Formats: sequence, C-alpha cells, structure tokens
Amino acid sequence: MKVYELQNSFGIDNLKLAERPEPRPGPGQILLKMRAWSLNYRDLLVVKGQYNAKLRLPLVPLSDGAGEVVAVGAGVTRVKVGDRVCPLFMPTWLAGQVTEADAPPALGGGYDGVLAEFCVFNQDSVVAVPAHLPHEDAATLPCAAVTAWHALVTEGRVTAGDTVLVQGTGGVSLFALQFARLAGARVLATSSSDAKLARVRQLGASDGINYKSHPEWGDLAREMTGGRGVDHVVEVGGAGTIGQSLRAVRLNGHVSLIGILSGGGSFNLVPILMKNVRVQGIFVGSREMFEAMNQAIALHQVRPVVDRVFGFGEVREALRYMESGQHFGKICIKI
Amino acid sequence: MKVYELQNSFGIDNLKLAERPEPRPGPGQILLKMRAWSLNYRDLLVVKGQYNAKLRLPLVPLSDGAGEVVAVGAGVTRVKVGDRVCPLFMPTWLAGQVTEADAPPALGGGYDGVLAEFCVFNQDSVVAVPAHLPHEDAATLPCAAVTAWHALVTEGRVTAGDTVLVQGTGGVSLFALQFARLAGARVLATSSSDAKLARVRQLGASDGINYKSHPEWGDLAREMTGGRGVDHVVEVGGAGTIGQSLRAVRLNGHVSLIGILSGGGSFNLVPILMKNVRVQGIFVGSREMFEAMNQAIALHQVRPVVDRVFGFGEVREALRYMESGQHFGKICIKI
Amino acid sequence: MKVYELQNSFGIDNLKLAERPEPRPGPGQILLKMRAWSLNYRDLLVVKGQYNAKLRLPLVPLSDGAGEVVAVGAGVTRVKVGDRVCPLFMPTWLAGQVTEADAPPALGGGYDGVLAEFCVFNQDSVVAVPAHLPHEDAATLPCAAVTAWHALVTEGRVTAGDTVLVQGTGGVSLFALQFARLAGARVLATSSSDAKLARVRQLGASDGINYKSHPEWGDLAREMTGGRGVDHVVEVGGAGTIGQSLRAVRLNGHVSLIGILSGGGSFNLVPILMKNVRVQGIFVGSREMFEAMNQAIALHQVRPVVDRVFGFGEVREALRYMESGQHFGKICIKI
Amino acid sequence: MKVYELQNSFGIDNLKLAERPEPRPGPGQILLKMRAWSLNYRDLLVVKGQYNAKLRLPLVPLSDGAGEVVAVGAGVTRVKVGDRVCPLFMPTWLAGQVTEADAPPALGGGYDGVLAEFCVFNQDSVVAVPAHLPHEDAATLPCAAVTAWHALVTEGRVTAGDTVLVQGTGGVSLFALQFARLAGARVLATSSSDAKLARVRQLGASDGINYKSHPEWGDLAREMTGGRGVDHVVEVGGAGTIGQSLRAVRLNGHVSLIGILSGGGSFNLVPILMKNVRVQGIFVGSREMFEAMNQAIALHQVRPVVDRVFGFGEVREALRYMESGQHFGKICIKI
Repeated sequence: MKVYELQNSFGIDNLKLAERPEPRPGPGQILLKMRAWSLNYRDLLVVKGQYNAKLRLPLVPLSDGAGEVVAVGAGVTRVKVGDRVCPLFMPTWLAGQVTEADAPPALGGGYDGVLAEFCVFNQDSVVAVPAHLPHEDAATLPCAAVTAWHALVTEGRVTAGDTVLVQGTGGVSLFALQFARLAGARVLATSSSDAKLARVRQLGASDGINYKSHPEWGDLAREMTGGRGVDHVVEVGGAGTIGQSLRAVRLNGHVSLIGILSGGGSFNLVPILMKNVRVQGIFVGSREMFEAMNQAIALHQVRPVVDRVFGFGEVREALRYMESGQHFGKICIKI
Repeated sequence: MKVYELQNSFGIDNLKLAERPEPRPGPGQILLKMRAWSLNYRDLLVVKGQYNAKLRLPLVPLSDGAGEVVAVGAGVTRVKVGDRVCPLFMPTWLAGQVTEADAPPALGGGYDGVLAEFCVFNQDSVVAVPAHLPHEDAATLPCAAVTAWHALVTEGRVTAGDTVLVQGTGGVSLFALQFARLAGARVLATSSSDAKLARVRQLGASDGINYKSHPEWGDLAREMTGGRGVDHVVEVGGAGTIGQSLRAVRLNGHVSLIGILSGGGSFNLVPILMKNVRVQGIFVGSREMFEAMNQAIALHQVRPVVDRVFGFGEVREALRYMESGQHFGKICIKI
Repeated sequence: MKVYELQNSFGIDNLKLAERPEPRPGPGQILLKMRAWSLNYRDLLVVKGQYNAKLRLPLVPLSDGAGEVVAVGAGVTRVKVGDRVCPLFMPTWLAGQVTEADAPPALGGGYDGVLAEFCVFNQDSVVAVPAHLPHEDAATLPCAAVTAWHALVTEGRVTAGDTVLVQGTGGVSLFALQFARLAGARVLATSSSDAKLARVRQLGASDGINYKSHPEWGDLAREMTGGRGVDHVVEVGGAGTIGQSLRAVRLNGHVSLIGILSGGGSFNLVPILMKNVRVQGIFVGSREMFEAMNQAIALHQVRPVVDRVFGFGEVREALRYMESGQHFGKICIKI
Repeated sequence: MKVYELQNSFGIDNLKLAERPEPRPGPGQILLKMRAWSLNYRDLLVVKGQYNAKLRLPLVPLSDGAGEVVAVGAGVTRVKVGDRVCPLFMPTWLAGQVTEADAPPALGGGYDGVLAEFCVFNQDSVVAVPAHLPHEDAATLPCAAVTAWHALVTEGRVTAGDTVLVQGTGGVSLFALQFARLAGARVLATSSSDAKLARVRQLGASDGINYKSHPEWGDLAREMTGGRGVDHVVEVGGAGTIGQSLRAVRLNGHVSLIGILSGGGSFNLVPILMKNVRVQGIFVGSREMFEAMNQAIALHQVRPVVDRVFGFGEVREALRYMESGQHFGKICIKI
C-alpha cells in the first residue's frame, strides 16, 4: 500500500510517498481503508521537525482521518465491516480522566500516524462517523473538533445565554463557534482580517473584533457584554493573547487554554486570582467526548468548515497551503 | 389599592376584590406597581384550599407577576424607579444551595402573594425583566420558567445533542421544551391530545407521543432514541408516570421530579438503581438561576407560550379556565 | 482445576465442586490464580435462583475475588506476572459514564463468575490490590466497597463536616461508614441490634439509632443534626426505608439508592420534590472509581471489616452463614 | 470608641489610635463588639500603601476579626445579641458565584475595615463562630481559612487519597494543610526552613521539601507520588513558583492560584495545556463556603495555628512582626 513517510530528514519536501505492506488486523483490531484526512497545525510542526525534539524517523505523519472498516480481527464486537469511522487522536483515552498511559505524544506524533492507504486500529480506538458527513468532513473531527467540544462543553459547560469569545479562524476556533451556537451561546470572534470576520458572522458570531485595529480587544469584548465580561474564552494564542483574554473574561469566567500560536513569554497572573478565573488546559479529548459531540453533530446536521480539499498526491501542496495561512477552516485530503 | 383576597373561606368564588392601604417601601425595599400576573396550578390549589392544610386566611394568592418600580426605600442600589422586574418565587433564595430559611411555603403560599395593585419587596428579591418581553410574558417566568431552567440547565446540564422528554403541555413542560431547544437538545413530548402534540412540534419538539394511544410510551420514547433512552425526563406527573419515565430514560440518565399531577401511589424503585439513574427533586429556583435564564431569554428573544390573557377583573374566570384544563401554555392576567 | 458450579438447578445444595480445564490467556488477557473471594447478598440470590429469571445453568457464581497473575497473553502491558489484582465487577466499565455495553448482568450474574481456582480476564478488567491488604481483605472490594465509594465520593462528593447516614451493617454500609470517616464526615448508623450499634460506634460512627426502638428514625436523625437533616443517606433498604430516609435528609441533600433489601412497595414522592433532594441510583462502579478508592485505602491503610473467613471447601457453609444474617461485615473464602 | 486609622499617610508608624463615635445598627444591621483580630499579608500591604493605588485615607485597616453581637437593628432575624460572629471578607458574597457587585476591594481594602472597638454589619454579612474556638482563633478564619477551603474543597473537590502540595507556612497554606488532612488527603509541604518543615510534619504533612536545597522541588514532589504527580497545588507564590508547581502536578491536576508572593514575571504556559491542568484563581470566598467550613471545623474541633497574640495597643508591633517573616501561622490581636 501507499504511505507518506518522513524518511531521513524533516521538511515538507522530505515527505515522500512510499510502499509498505498492507497491515492485517490482529485479535480485537480492525483494518481501515482510509478515505480522507485533515491537517492540523501540529502536523505542519511535525513535518518540519519543530514539534518535538524526540521524534524519530521514519515517521508517517497526521493524526486525523476517516475511513471504512474493511476487515476485523477475532473478537471484534464494537464495529463491523462497512462501518465508517474515525480513529481517536489519543487512542487509549476512552473515557473519564486522562491518565499517563493515554497521554501524548499520540497519533502522528511519537509514532506513526494515519497518512496511509490502510491503517490498523484497536476496535476501541475508533468512533462511528455521523451518517450525513462525507469522508473529508469526518476527517476534520478527531483533533480540532474534539478539542473544541472538550473545552466548551465537557469542561466549560457552556449553556444558553453564555457569551463565548473565539480567537482567529483556525479549526478549533471555528468548531468552537459552531458548538457554542448549538448550545445557545453568543459568540464574539477576533481576527486580523475584516473579510474573515465577515465570514465568522455568517457562521453565527454576533460580533467580530479586528485585533489589529483594536489591540485592546479584551476591553472591547468586555464592553460588548455590557461590561460584565465574556463567560468563556477559547484561548489559542498563548502568552501573546492571554492578557487580553483575561481582560475580556468575566469574574469567575473560564479560559480554555488550547494553543500557544503566539508563542511563550510573560503575562500577568494577577487577574486570574483577582477575577477568580479558571484557566483550563485542554489536550484534545476522550472517545466519550467524541461520541457525545457526534450526537450533537448528527442531530443538528452540522457541517465542518472545510476550506479546500487536496488529492492524495498533493499532500505537500496541502501543507504548504496551511503554511501560507490563507485558509479559513480545515484543509483536507481525499483519496 | 385593590387586592384580591381569600377572606373567610377557600374556593374560587370566595376570592374577592378588596381595598387595602397602599404599602410603602422601608429601607432596602422597593414599591412595585404590578402590571401583569400569571397562574400556576399551585395557585388553583391554594385558592381551593387544597394546597396546604396550614394556610390561614385572609390570604392574597399568586406567586407570579411583573411590575414597575415606582418608589424605592433608603439604601436601595440594585434597582431604580422605572425598572421592570419580577419578584422571586422564593424571596430569600438568592444563590447557591437552598437553605431552611429560604424554603417553602414561598410567595402566595404561607403568606400573601402578589395579586394586588401594589407590592413591596426587598430590593434583593426581584429580577430585571428582559427588555423584549411585554408585562404579561414576563409574569410567566418566576415559577414555571425558573423551575424548568433549574431542572434542565442548572441541575440537568442539558447540552447539545441530548434528548429531553417533556410530559404534557403545562407551563413547566413548555418552558422545558423551549430551553432544551435553545441548548441544542432534541425534545420528545407526550400528551393525550394529538392537537396539542401538533403544537409542541411547531414549538420544536421532534416527536410527539400520545400517551393514550401508547400507554407504554416509555418504551416508545426509548425506541425513538435508537434504544439508548432519553438523557433527561422532566417529570411532572409523579407516581402515575414515573414508571414509564424510568423506562424511557437511559443508563445514568436524569429525571427531574417537578410535579405530582397524577398523584401519589407506588412505583418500582429498582430501575433507579439498576440504571444508575438520578432522580432530582426541583423546587423552583434561586435568583442566580433566574438571572442566568433571563440572559438566555434575552439573547434568543424567547417568547413564553401564553394561552390567554384575562383582565384584572376576571381572575375568577381565569382560575376556572385553568381548572378546565383546556389551555396550552400560560394563563395571564393584565391590568 | 476446581470450580464451583450450579449445575442443573439452583439452591445452595446444588452448588457443586467440579473439574474444568485450566484456562489460558489469549492476546491481551491474563491468567489469575484466585486466592480469596468474598460474598455479596447478590451471590446468595444468584445461587438460590432468585436474582434473575434469565440465568442459565451451568453457572459459576461470585463476582468478588482477588488473585495473583500467573501468566499473561501477548501484548499485555498493564499488569505483570506476580501482581496481585481484583477483577472488576463490571468488566468493561473502565471510566466515565456507564454505557449499555458495560451494563449488567456483570460477573457471576449472566455469565460465569470467579469461584474457580483460575480465571482469565482482559488485562483492562483488573485493578491492583493495595499492598497492605491480605487476599481475603482485597476480595471484599470489587462490589461492596466500589459501590460505597461511587455513592459517597464520586456522586455524593462527601466532604469534611458533612453528615452521612448509613443503614444497617452490611458490606456496603460498613464501607460507606469507613469512607465517610476518611473524608471527614460524621456518620449516623441504624441497626435493629444494640450490639451491632456498639460496633459501628467503634468503627467511627458518632451515633447509632436502633430502628426497632425508633421506628421514626428519620426524625431522630434529623434532630441529631440540630434539625438541619443529614447531607447523605446511603439507602440500602428500598421502599421500606426510603420514607424515613427522606425525613432524615436535609434540603438539597443526597440519597444514594443502592439496595432494596426491604423490598418494593409504595412511598411518597413529594418530599423529593419539596426538599429538592437528589436520589441517585448506584450500580457498583468503574475501574477509575476503584483505583481512586484504592489510593485512599492505601494511604490510610484501611482494613475492610471481615466477619469470618471460610475455606474453599466450605462455600456452602459460607452462603448459609450469610443467609442466617448473623454476620457483621464481609464473609470471605480463602484457598 | 477606639479605632486604628491610617490618617494622612501610609506606613506602619502612621497607623494611629483615634476616637470615633460608637456606631449604631440601622434596620437589618447588627452592632459587634470586636474581641479579636488577625493579620493577613494584605493588611501589611494596605498599611504600607502597597496594596492598591486607589486607596484613600483616612482608612481603618484589617479584614479579619471576631466579636460579639451587642445590639441589633429592626428586622434582624439571622443573629441575636450574645452571638459570637465573624464578618465576611467580601460582605455581599453570600452564596453561588461571585458577581461584580460582590467583588473586591472588600473589607479593609477600599473601605474601612474592622480594627475598631465596635463595628456595624448587615446581618447577612456575618457568620456564627464554632463554639469551641476562642475569639483570637475565630478571628483567623474570614480570609485565610475561607480561601483555603474555597481552593481545596469547593473548587478543588479534594477527596480521600488525594495528594495536596502546599507552599510555605503562611496562613492559607497551614489551613490548606489542615483541611486537606480532614478530607483524607496526603500533604506535601515546601519551605526554606527545615525547622518549619518539622512543624508542618507535626501538623500532618507526610513530607516536607526544602526548596532551597531542592530548587527543582516540582520534580521531587512528583517522585514522592511515584511519578504520577500531585492532585492539587495550593499556589501562593505566583510566577516564581508556578513553573515548579506545574512540574509537580499530575495530568488533569488542579492548581489553585491564590497568591503572588514571589511576584510577577514570565512562565511557560505549555504544561497547562499539555497536562490538561486547571489553574483556578481563588479570591477568598462566600458565606456559604464559610459556613460549610465551620461545620467541618466544629465537627473536628480544629484549632487554627496561631503563632502569637498581641494586645490591642500593640498593632504596630504585630505588623512589624509579620514584616519580619518569622511567624509560623497566624498573628492575632486581642482586646
């Protein structure tokens, strides 16, 4: 079968199509014919060798995909041939609290990911895809969507009437926008582009904030809530944005710390204390969260925001497109 | 001022318009000119002398109303003249857990209620009305709506993708339907009337179940969820319905016990245990819940389902109309 | 190997020692040499054919035991030869919420239990035993102790200063007493025997209530808390006791519904509603709960209350002893 | 009556005894004859003018005290003459979530505190003192003890078998140690002094860590838990210590952010995200928390750790003693 590998060195150009023997499912395992994949920013870091100094090559990248069960090993009861499923980002985190045994690096990080024609998974490590979703849409769910659900619904307990602030228009932020709306919340969104802000308003954000024209956007968000502050911030920027997030958030509000796109550096801890704020780190999520999310996606026939779908032969182009930062929503690959 | 009193004996016919001196707000108090009221089934029980053997006459009935602040006492800071507010059903339950000091009988039960032209309240015991609601709509909130919010949102943590079963078409059930929809849940509704089921579908229920044609409606509801069972039941019937509710509910599901319209009597406890179910008694709610609910109502411009609005002189007619059971939604009174 | 079977018919006398081939662990499985077992009331019902009309024979009874890992199959990483472990009562409920796939009948109910010299389990379906516990003590944990932990700690969130009421002196109640004390709570205990009440006081209960001399023990418990009511009731009696439990419990208190020893029948639902009480069904628990419990047991060097230890040849005597109701604490079997 | 005031300028030497008229309780208010006070580090900052640039003089400092009710105004029902009570640190935060109206500056911050012979409070803004506590012990509770309870019990849900790390030997840390022990947790404590570590071990800490000899104390704490990490960190140091705290804490663990004694500055956010950690800001707490805490203190006859009691004439000496940092536990003042 065909598989993409980083062979001897990192870098988009070093990601090569190779041949590997088709895997076979052992007892309790299933064989998945992959039909689509989606890219996360983490995949770009992995490919470029910037994710984790300990990664060893060769490595098959990518955590997110969707496929069809084409064979099952002995004792498989949870899925059957023909089922459409997604693998879990963290294959052993099924439910409850994460444990050391489940923890990172996860799929496509410390071990081979899913960018291959066929993959074998434990039957426990996959989730059924909502029926209305085409493969490429389903492929967007395992990392970005589950992270947004975990942040807002599982930990954040967002509810009707809440106000949620999402930053930028990356995959997690757009899913957070969609889930917040499903749950009856108002959404404020930030971006540096008025064009992108127009699009988030189409997706249901009540207000867009251009953080270039409003560098003190935290205060502006606060004003937009009548001075009370937002209930939840989906923080993907890290040290460069959390200061404004802590201005935006209300007393006893919730900041989900998901990404550090704007890098490390210092920030003032005092507002966390004086505003009784919760800052909750979010590392993707469990199968239980994924399944609860899929129930909501199925009920509301939610469609993920897919920016562009590349062919299986265009993975390098897809990664370079992500690198360019032009996209709005998920970048997918389809076979 | 004019006030309705049960004077010497109970009964709808004994509810009389009387004159009392207009009250004046003391320190920390406010004077409310009442503009509208709504009826709850409890009010009918109170008026007919069936609510509580300890009630003493004379008594001004009714817990639910809305009015305008026309004067404030010394030290009032939370509200100002001109504000439109509703009194709390349980005037001292402001936030957190209910305590003995806050507990029933509550407004219009063990002491005078709100069916008067003017009422005095502590400034802490009222809640601002969402701006888009006319007085009669606002008057429906204090008991039925807060109860539904408490059940589904505060305790039930209903979330997107959940399935909620509501029983009948009384005030609590219709608010529960509306709030469940706001929060992204699917709603199944029961009724003995196909005409009423058609109306709950218009309000957003995905399915209606006629419990007369389907006495085993619990199993039917379970089937409608693909055999998994519903996540929440808003139980208003009591012993006559809880058996079916426990058939309908999923493992680890939630039954909010709110009413006992179908009376007392026996039921089988075993499913609560074997299905790991939570049965949560709900007694109206706190100001904190009321305010969170109003945020959701304001954001989504929710309009309560009002069946009919009577004039201030028609209170007895309004009670008799409630007694007839023909209504769908709240019965209001307006001055 | 030797194994106890109900062969052709139910009844203590029909429980026979038989020979079966020693099982071998497949991939992901472990072989356990059983060292001790403990009895639950459910086992007595199973043996006597009173548990579930659907049980088919032959059946190996018992859910609770402890043993030593003597062999492991391919791919086993969670445990190793020499480890002392207990099997889970519900073998696939690892963490999070229980699902249909995990649900009863469970070990020793709808399929063979553990009363054999050797048993094979999935590596995921066992829990390491705290080092200080002898085998017979460890064998008491899977059902009764996990149930008590689930009720009081996981769902009940018992905390320092709370008051917990436990009923009788069965296994769940004594574990509940011990865990409530660990968590800093006060414990009131009921029994029909003053001698047993003396013993629960030795175990840390502040007060004992003889429910024969005080049939209105709910009111007495309430008085013992200065009229406020107890925070948690560990309800094992069912319809015969829940009425008094609902008198004992405080506003917004918690009743864990665990058993129905006193049978079915009617009870008044109104207090659940008027006191805003939570009645939470508890069906044993997950591996996550079991492991959290073991941390507490290990930290505090808790010793389960073991009444008597029978030999492997005396299983019928052990069951008859349980039937007699003379015991205080767990009845164990040791090989 | 006598009262301590900062009159024209800040500084310990400018804290002067003055005369003010004895206050009288209005409707709903109570008059408290103060019997004891305790110092918090915040009081030192207030007195030295380092707390908040907006403070205006004259100001009566101190938030914490205990006294006896000597008179009550009209309509007072919650307390009566003769009751021993403590005022709330945040006088209007009674229960539930904190709101803007309840928020800081709080007692002795933006307005007059309690360092006076008599004080008037709203009847809702005081809490009954556990009967076994002398006045000076009771005076230690409103800020430090409630903060520790809020952090560990209300938000942290510490439970039996958990491991809690406390930093240093200030008031909050010692209360956290005591409450963690009540709740059945293991406690690790840090200090720069071996003598102080010996004392925290006497108070129930299982282990002491000298952070001077072990600058990488986070890793050491992690080792002490068998590599798993601690469940809760009571973080009082801020930016200077949170890096080690995030090394010490387990996956999905809880860091209560309470103080910033070691100042501002930068720290690495990544572990919050990658370890799925919750950082929860804690700003003292509500009356509901205070009352729950007092139940636990009363049940277990807890005695706060009081280092030294000064006379009412020795307030400046008491503040200088706090400044010296020699104390272990609370510094009190008694009249």
